[in-house]
Amino acid sequence: NTASPSQDLIHVACVCAGHNASRDVVTLVKSILFHRRNPLHFHFITDTVANRILSSLFQSWMVPSVHVSFYDADELKSEVSWIPNKHYSGIYGLMKLTLTKALPSDLSKVIVLDTDITFATDIAELWGIFRKFTDKQVIGLVENQSDWYLGNLWKNHKPWPALGRGFNTGVILLYLERLRRIGWEQMWRLTAERELMSMLSTSLADQDIFNAFIKQNPVLVHQLPCFWNVQLSDHTRSEQCYTEVSDLKVIHWNSPKKLRVKNKHVEFFRNLYLTFLEYDGNLLRRELFGCPTQASPESVQLQAALEELDEDDQCYDFRRERITVHRVHLYFLQYEYTPTGDDTDVTLVAQLSMDRLQMLEAICKHWEGPISLALYMSDAEAQQFLRYAQASEVLKNRKNVGYHIVYKEGQFYPVNLVRNVALKNVNTPYVFLADVDFLPMYGLYDYLRKSVVQLDMAHTKKALVVPAFETLRYRLSFPKSKAELLSMLDMGTLYTFRYHVWTKGHAPTNYAKWRTATTPYKVEWESDFEPYVVVRRDCPEYDQRFVGFGWNKVSHIMELDAQEYDLMVLPNAFMIHMPHAPSFDISKFRSSPSYRNCLSTLKDEFHQDLSRKYGSAALKYLTAQRNI
Amino acid sequence: NTASPSQDLIHVACVCAGHNASRDVVTLVKSILFHRRNPLHFHFITDTVANRILSSLFQSWMVPSVHVSFYDADELKSEVSWIPNKHYSGIYGLMKLTLTKALPSDLSKVIVLDTDITFATDIAELWGIFRKFTDKQVIGLVENQSDWYLGNLWKNHKPWPALGRGFNTGVILLYLERLRRIGWEQMWRLTAERELMSMLSTSLADQDIFNAFIKQNPVLVHQLPCFWNVQLSDHTRSEQCYTEVSDLKVIHWNSPKKLRVKNKHVEFFRNLYLTFLEYDGNLLRRELFGCPTQASPESVQLQAALEELDEDDQCYDFRRERITVHRVHLYFLQYEYTPTGDDTDVTLVAQLSMDRLQMLEAICKHWEGPISLALYMSDAEAQQFLRYAQASEVLKNRKNVGYHIVYKEGQFYPVNLVRNVALKNVNTPYVFLADVDFLPMYGLYDYLRKSVVQLDMAHTKKALVVPAFETLRYRLSFPKSKAELLSMLDMGTLYTFRYHVWTKGHAPTNYAKWRTATTPYKVEWESDFEPYVVVRRDCPEYDQRFVGFGWNKVSHIMELDAQEYDLMVLPNAFMIHMPHAPSFDISKFRSSPSYRNCLSTLKDEFHQDLSRKYGSAALKYLTAQRNI
Repeated sequence: NTASPSQDLIHVACVCAGHNASRDVVTLVKSILFHRRNPLHFHFITDTVANRILSSLFQSWMVPSVHVSFYDADELKSEVSWIPNKHYSGIYGLMKLTLTKALPSDLSKVIVLDTDITFATDIAELWGIFRKFTDKQVIGLVENQSDWYLGNLWKNHKPWPALGRGFNTGVILLYLERLRRIGWEQMWRLTAERELMSMLSTSLADQDIFNAFIKQNPVLVHQLPCFWNVQLSDHTRSEQCYTEVSDLKVIHWNSPKKLRVKNKHVEFFRNLYLTFLEYDGNLLRRELFGCPTQASPESVQLQAALEELDEDDQCYDFRRERITVHRVHLYFLQYEYTPTGDDTDVTLVAQLSMDRLQMLEAICKHWEGPISLALYMSDAEAQQFLRYAQASEVLKNRKNVGYHIVYKEGQFYPVNLVRNVALKNVNTPYVFLADVDFLPMYGLYDYLRKSVVQLDMAHTKKALVVPAFETLRYRLSFPKSKAELLSMLDMGTLYTFRYHVWTKGHAPTNYAKWRTATTPYKVEWESDFEPYVVVRRDCPEYDQRFVGFGWNKVSHIMELDAQEYDLMVLPNAFMIHMPHAPSFDISKFRSSPSYRNCLSTLKDEFHQDLSRKYGSAALKYLTAQRNI
Repeated sequence: NTASPSQDLIHVACVCAGHNASRDVVTLVKSILFHRRNPLHFHFITDTVANRILSSLFQSWMVPSVHVSFYDADELKSEVSWIPNKHYSGIYGLMKLTLTKALPSDLSKVIVLDTDITFATDIAELWGIFRKFTDKQVIGLVENQSDWYLGNLWKNHKPWPALGRGFNTGVILLYLERLRRIGWEQMWRLTAERELMSMLSTSLADQDIFNAFIKQNPVLVHQLPCFWNVQLSDHTRSEQCYTEVSDLKVIHWNSPKKLRVKNKHVEFFRNLYLTFLEYDGNLLRRELFGCPTQASPESVQLQAALEELDEDDQCYDFRRERITVHRVHLYFLQYEYTPTGDDTDVTLVAQLSMDRLQMLEAICKHWEGPISLALYMSDAEAQQFLRYAQASEVLKNRKNVGYHIVYKEGQFYPVNLVRNVALKNVNTPYVFLADVDFLPMYGLYDYLRKSVVQLDMAHTKKALVVPAFETLRYRLSFPKSKAELLSMLDMGTLYTFRYHVWTKGHAPTNYAKWRTATTPYKVEWESDFEPYVVVRRDCPEYDQRFVGFGWNKVSHIMELDAQEYDLMVLPNAFMIHMPHAPSFDISKFRSSPSYRNCLSTLKDEFHQDLSRKYGSAALKYLTAQRNI
């Protein structure tokens, strides 16, 4: 048993670039956290995409005794970009060579991992192997389990030089302190330059260079038992590595085929991988035992907020939810957005959970501009969503949709928190604050961009109202124009939104005026008004105290009014609500008296906060409320 | 390290009675399977409810190297029913005393577990402790971690006699062979009889008797380290048991508060428990390594069927799904049904997944008779469903609904397999084969029971057709009578079912005739007819080759016709389809040409099978099909 004492801080480094690798690395991290008993420090070499994703993920994950540092891969590019490379990992694979330079100069040891690794044991066991290094040894590696470096795979197959079968660099113990001392930085470069004269390019990225280096300096390598990197390419010798499940320590999905690789025990490995893929990451937030935690400022703050709560308060559950920190995985799928040159771009902002997934394709067909969506899901559901999106022709071909996962926790649907995640991750100057069960009229995107200019949104405080309608029918032939909409309204095929159940929500839009309007017109705020609006991105956030059903949009519009936004109704814009079964949350709360009581308490507190922030002008909201 | 060699067969016994314990024990079993490397033999002492549930669960689970035996708890009742007992576990708790008699006489050792146990390590480690027993020792136990047996909890608190703090019987190593030899059966009885003279009843069931016995025979006990049974009651001394996560081996949720117990590390324990609660049980089907499996007949059959499949067949995925064995957990919730005396009872049969859960309350309000529902869900979704059902006043108060979970696996929705699970687990002579998105007219249940008699269903082969209608509107005021329905039909508030998109499915019902009909009338089968019918329970099953969307009910009605069922339309029955968003499966397949091709191949094969079974008469289906 080589396990390290549980106080030891273990350092792990990973090169991670782009959306897909950022998703993959989470499964690796989960497998490490699941088994770990030690504090951990992750060092991520990232491009800007992975940095944005992983930094917000770890910040919201709040795993005790886990530190995370980021290093800019772009700054390291010049160190390796001179090396011609054919491997699918591209330039990022090569960056493992630069870690002595990239990582802090006082860091003495680090475990380096590829993102396609899964741990089946406590990483402290691997860390403990550093203690078995002889004085000379600087790199710990597992033998390569394919025949590649034997050079007999095909006629004239000429791999880079290697000791025997060579070594695999998916798992590396790097003794940084010693590497620096022996001049590693110059050494690997000299090796690479010399070999490239005859080899012209690397086939397996950093691995070729590590192997050529080791062939010249065999005393520097510490060979690890092969179960520390069981390589699941087709035709590997990995089976000789283990006879028992308990022998398996680390699985390496190093075939481009990944989970579809052929291997005798692939079912077992797949199960191990799927276990972590779908594992509820919240369960990994547990404290280490017997390990005094250096709490992060965020967790100190959270702890203080928790202690302020009164467990006997009848709204305890609501207040508890209000301060719950949900894990957030931004840009879960590939995302590309090029800003328009004219500063008029508008992002459609919405939130949803699994039961509204089927709206996404339709929305994409009705709105060609950028979209920011926050999805409230469990880890397993996020994987289901991923499969759904990858199978959909419509979604696959749209790159300007940012999908942000907010992981489920607790019994309430934190709708305003989810909305804020979508709102805060917008890359355009304007936002269209919509709901996912609405379809915008065709051409709304262009019309809004024109309106933004026409109404000088850049220099005035305005909220442009997009009038909302609804249909109670599934098979609606969507109106192509305002004229067509008006005639459908007259026929009773369409209604103004929530006409039957809650007219007040949209009454101030003044549908009668809208029928004949040809220019934007200003309307006054009234209580319970909750229109869908276009505003500048710097608008106030949604108030997160409102969870579940009720007052989530109303409070936001109220705050816009308190900040003296002009509410301008757009004469040629409309959106239509599509029918669906009521959501769980609504049916759960509509009937609950304690929910209604708490909602009313929260409303009062919101009003008090408004008065505090906006002074006596905000009293009108209270009066408006009381008059109901 | 006391772990046993991985060839050792480990025996585990559990007393399990009723619906709730049957659900709880699955989490225990999952936690054992997750860590295990040895073949296992589970011995379940069950009542008829738990027997039915667990035997079908394990049969469909098909975990390699896991054997299961059942023993009838009712037969053991007389052994312990003479002991007055106040503990919440009731008479079943006491049955642990009878294991030497209940289990096979050649079984020498067994680990006995309560259902509220979670394993955090390989059970082989615990099994290995038998080897540490001295020659005299016959029972391995962990010390009790509460102060109960110290007898100072309150004034005049007088517990049963025990050695010191006494022992907890949630985890027991029973050396059966030796117990039989020393005459355990007589010994515990004598102890119990003697103590009961002064104590009058047991407070903690079997645990009191075990402790009194041990107090008299201390040399017989082997004390286990306390981490083998970390007891999470409030105010237990369990914290002294571990300083490290890795010290924890077995968690015992032995407080009536269960997960809400107060304990310093309860978050950690809860996470461990939730991990297994929601863990995908399919992932536990993996083979053991290096352990030649004695395959069950079912798995041999499955293996043979798999080998017959051609991976290059374009319909491979469909055929693969056809032979997939889905795990089934029957009667997931409390279920009570008393047969009616008159043999006329009818069960509503339907299937659903998460996205139709909100229909359940409405259906329960429209149908007061028994219901058999199969739910296609993941393990995590089944827990969500459980919480939903427990929170619903309507569902909580209905005991005559059998909820059967069919666990998800693979990419298709195996709709006919799920339907068959609901159909096969019916306890009435007749079934109403419905769909979950329909609401029956009020009073349909009584009307069907009368019709069953009137049409002599017991002695004739008939399928009674319940005419189907649909609304495209959410807020429907449900018609109270046929007259009201007809006028809504005339008003365009209702339509005949799928009138706009697929008239053929119900055209043979002859809605025109139905308007004025006052007596049942016979109709002829036509191609693509898919009415909702009432038949005897012994009707043919649904053909499971049809998965996903298409031909799943059509093929069933065709087979009823091939078996010469008379199709009789009921003049005063109706049901109405409620609107909902299209399901994922439909949208996935409607657009896929390869799906359509395979469906057509499967149809052809179904026709061939019909001809084979029913001879030349079945040729008409082929002709009808070709004419389209």
